Amino acid sequence: MSQAPEPVRDLDWAPERARAFADGAADLWEELLRRLPELPVRRRWSAEDVRNAVAIPVPDEPMADEALLAYLRDVVFEWSAYLGHPRFLAYISGAGTVPGAAADLLAAGLNMNAGGWQLAPSAIEIEVALTRFFANEMFGLPEGAGGLIVSGGAMANFVALKAARDRRAGWDVRNEGILAGPQLGLYLSTETHVVSDRAADMLGIGWANVRHVSVDDGSRMRVDELRAQIARDRETGIRPFAVVGTAGTVSTGAIDALGDIADVCADEGLWFHVDAAYGGPAMLAEDLRPLFAGIERADSIAFDPHKWLYTPHSGGCVLLRDFSLLQGSFDAQPSYIHQDREVTHAGLDLGRYGPQFSRSFWALKVWVSLLAHGRSAYGRRISHDAELARYLGARVEEHPAFELAGPVGLSICCFRFVPPDLPEGSGREAYLSVLNERLMAEMQVDGRVFLSNAVLGDRFVLRVCVVNFRTEAQDMDAVLEVAEELGSKIDGELRPEDLR
Amino acid sequence: MSQAPEPVRDLDWAPERARAFADGAADLWEELLRRLPELPVRRRWSAEDVRNAVAIPVPDEPMADEALLAYLRDVVFEWSAYLGHPRFLAYISGAGTVPGAAADLLAAGLNMNAGGWQLAPSAIEIEVALTRFFANEMFGLPEGAGGLIVSGGAMANFVALKAARDRRAGWDVRNEGILAGPQLGLYLSTETHVVSDRAADMLGIGWANVRHVSVDDGSRMRVDELRAQIARDRETGIRPFAVVGTAGTVSTGAIDALGDIADVCADEGLWFHVDAAYGGPAMLAEDLRPLFAGIERADSIAFDPHKWLYTPHSGGCVLLRDFSLLQGSFDAQPSYIHQDREVTHAGLDLGRYGPQFSRSFWALKVWVSLLAHGRSAYGRRISHDAELARYLGARVEEHPAFELAGPVGLSICCFRFVPPDLPEGSGREAYLSVLNERLMAEMQVDGRVFLSNAVLGDRFVLRVCVVNFRTEAQDMDAVLEVAEELGSKIDGELRPEDLR
Repeated sequence: MSQAPEPVRDLDWAPERARAFADGAADLWEELLRRLPELPVRRRWSAEDVRNAVAIPVPDEPMADEALLAYLRDVVFEWSAYLGHPRFLAYISGAGTVPGAAADLLAAGLNMNAGGWQLAPSAIEIEVALTRFFANEMFGLPEGAGGLIVSGGAMANFVALKAARDRRAGWDVRNEGILAGPQLGLYLSTETHVVSDRAADMLGIGWANVRHVSVDDGSRMRVDELRAQIARDRETGIRPFAVVGTAGTVSTGAIDALGDIADVCADEGLWFHVDAAYGGPAMLAEDLRPLFAGIERADSIAFDPHKWLYTPHSGGCVLLRDFSLLQGSFDAQPSYIHQDREVTHAGLDLGRYGPQFSRSFWALKVWVSLLAHGRSAYGRRISHDAELARYLGARVEEHPAFELAGPVGLSICCFRFVPPDLPEGSGREAYLSVLNERLMAEMQVDGRVFLSNAVLGDRFVLRVCVVNFRTEAQDMDAVLEVAEELGSKIDGELRPEDLR
Repeated sequence: MSQAPEPVRDLDWAPERARAFADGAADLWEELLRRLPELPVRRRWSAEDVRNAVAIPVPDEPMADEALLAYLRDVVFEWSAYLGHPRFLAYISGAGTVPGAAADLLAAGLNMNAGGWQLAPSAIEIEVALTRFFANEMFGLPEGAGGLIVSGGAMANFVALKAARDRRAGWDVRNEGILAGPQLGLYLSTETHVVSDRAADMLGIGWANVRHVSVDDGSRMRVDELRAQIARDRETGIRPFAVVGTAGTVSTGAIDALGDIADVCADEGLWFHVDAAYGGPAMLAEDLRPLFAGIERADSIAFDPHKWLYTPHSGGCVLLRDFSLLQGSFDAQPSYIHQDREVTHAGLDLGRYGPQFSRSFWALKVWVSLLAHGRSAYGRRISHDAELARYLGARVEEHPAFELAGPVGLSICCFRFVPPDLPEGSGREAYLSVLNERLMAEMQVDGRVFLSNAVLGDRFVLRVCVVNFRTEAQDMDAVLEVAEELGSKIDGELRPEDLR
């Protein structure tokens, strides 16, 4: 009989060693949570500093566990940024739920592959239950709706728009390609996130065939202009296939008139997709939910649990009114995966419904966060984030050195620093953009408060977005304190002679 | 002054509570590792059983931590499949490294967003170092090569083929779309994984424009036929743009003649992509590395750390010979992200190089696994996986009730159960496929050993793929014991009269 090879056990750590290493990681996390209020959001590094510290060579022999944990301690406390810090208020990047982080340990330790039901029965049934909760209970989509957890909002929008393309093109695009039909047209607004433009690029439709409909003074798509653009395009032989409405624009938190866009889509036979990457979870907040009227008429919705459900990076969600269309748009069954369901009694193989065959149990951190916190507390906290943004807006309006840049939308407040003694004059507006641009950069490296920007018209403005369950009113106050301190200093250095 | 809103702290767990919850998760993981050898790979469930147990309603109020951990304990021990079990040998799904799981806790606890350097300095420098290690040291690509960790192999192949499309189409596809040029043609073999076909669908090229070149008797693409097909297509106005070589086919672990395909691509001006999703990490094993000669000439490589680097789901890797081409193919910079690098001294914003803006720190589990285990142990274990597959092949050949279905390729062994007393006859081959198909399903639900299948020609065969650092020779022996036991029983029930 053949000689059995000798075992090779280097990678098969004993349970005690595994636990000790996990404890080491948990120690670092606990220490981080403890020190978070005293840490800066980020430190003053250069890329070179960080690289020199963390990019060590891959060793031939194992690092000792203690040495590896010491290295990780350095990574965590010296070279990382803290998006869960109460004063991280930039872009739209959630703070990271606490139970969600522990869930990720379990998901990785279990290591199921949620592409196939037999490889992940609990993972797939949880993902199905989770996405149905979102579809039916959160967004009000009908029975038969469902979706997937994907890598993030860009992918969620892409998956939805691929389903739209394949369903509404009017020929078998999957097989014959874009070249076999007329030019397809995609409609969105000038405020829609660029990931939908890029989805058109990825799908072979091309940026040039994305129509950026203008917006009204509330940053909402002009629906009359949408209708007119569709009519003009049809006359030139373009075939419109989908409209993207936005529920929470990235610059100002505006929400399109979703019901009106749904009417246009119904009249024109177009797919109605809603990019709710940011705003979607506000459906859980009683005071914000009415703003989204019409979203229940969508053919598809993309939203990001890692934004306003605060779950750790990353996990986006795509929902379809008719879940089965995902299989029609993504299935590609190979011969090496064969299944006799009469024997296996298996459920859905979610790898046949989306862009990944092998799939992580990303749903667990979202599911555990919802169970641990409950729907009510989520609703209260989301509502509170918006309340804090409005509070900041009110403080800005009261303050002589700041100017509100527009209405607060959802949990976004845009404003700018305007030195009270800055005279009127031809260079004033240009200087204010230069000043605020520099102020944002200096605030970011300063690290006490981290915010980002918007460009509204030709004004560069500061932008605070609260999707952070650790943020409170004193953090809003700190934004203005730091901005005034640094803004005054920079103004002293930068202001041109003719504006002095 | 405006009234400051009262704090809402429900989601902001204290560090002690966070730690206790993480300990609860770590307890479950440790118990799982301890019990793994005695647990079945999977239990006999139906989708309905699992759904009834795990799909609980999302509550309005928080679940108590103990109740939630008890629920998770039930999920882990009653309703989950264990891909880290020594006898999980199906598809190509890695066992899940131990330090990689702990790293996922830390990645989620840190919650950096590796889309932007300022939001994830250490994460991005680690991802850059990791992908350069893969590009330069593992695959031998030149300086300037690099890549990304993405959600998995399907996405890694898609990203590479999008870069190929945009670079080699000959017009500005990103802007003008597929319709603005001639039909593009993509070349791969009949053994290439279907994700590349689907990438052509996603990119708007269409399945019909993917050429499936035939293979030789070792399942390698026939390079003469590739040249002939390209020539035929050029004559009909199709514009070939890329060839996909495979380094480790999913059915039999075959490796295309990569150097010969590279020659064709050089002669024809085509992009040379290698799908090394499975085989790639075998570059770390001295005895297997020579099989991949020519891979260093690739324009792009896709491979999956969650396969043969055993890291937890999920994380694929895409590498480009010229890393900068990723930015050319994916960048879409919105106005709300502005940066003055002279102030911030920031490094790469990896969100501009791939399909996701917000990005998880997936690289950490791979990086920590490499540091914890070291390159040598990885090489030894990968080599050992292949040795175990060859051992199984030898045992199959010695055994009167089994038949080897072809040469063992990398760590894949394909074989079938052939009852020793089965007579020759016209129905024999058809019956053997029926018998082995049923045998696979019964073995899967039996749960002692979990394998999958291949379809070779018209034969349905059993397939074992070892990408599992807990598997040893006795597990190979168990495959044959269980297969013989169940196979004989099923044969007794299914065999038709004329073959008795």
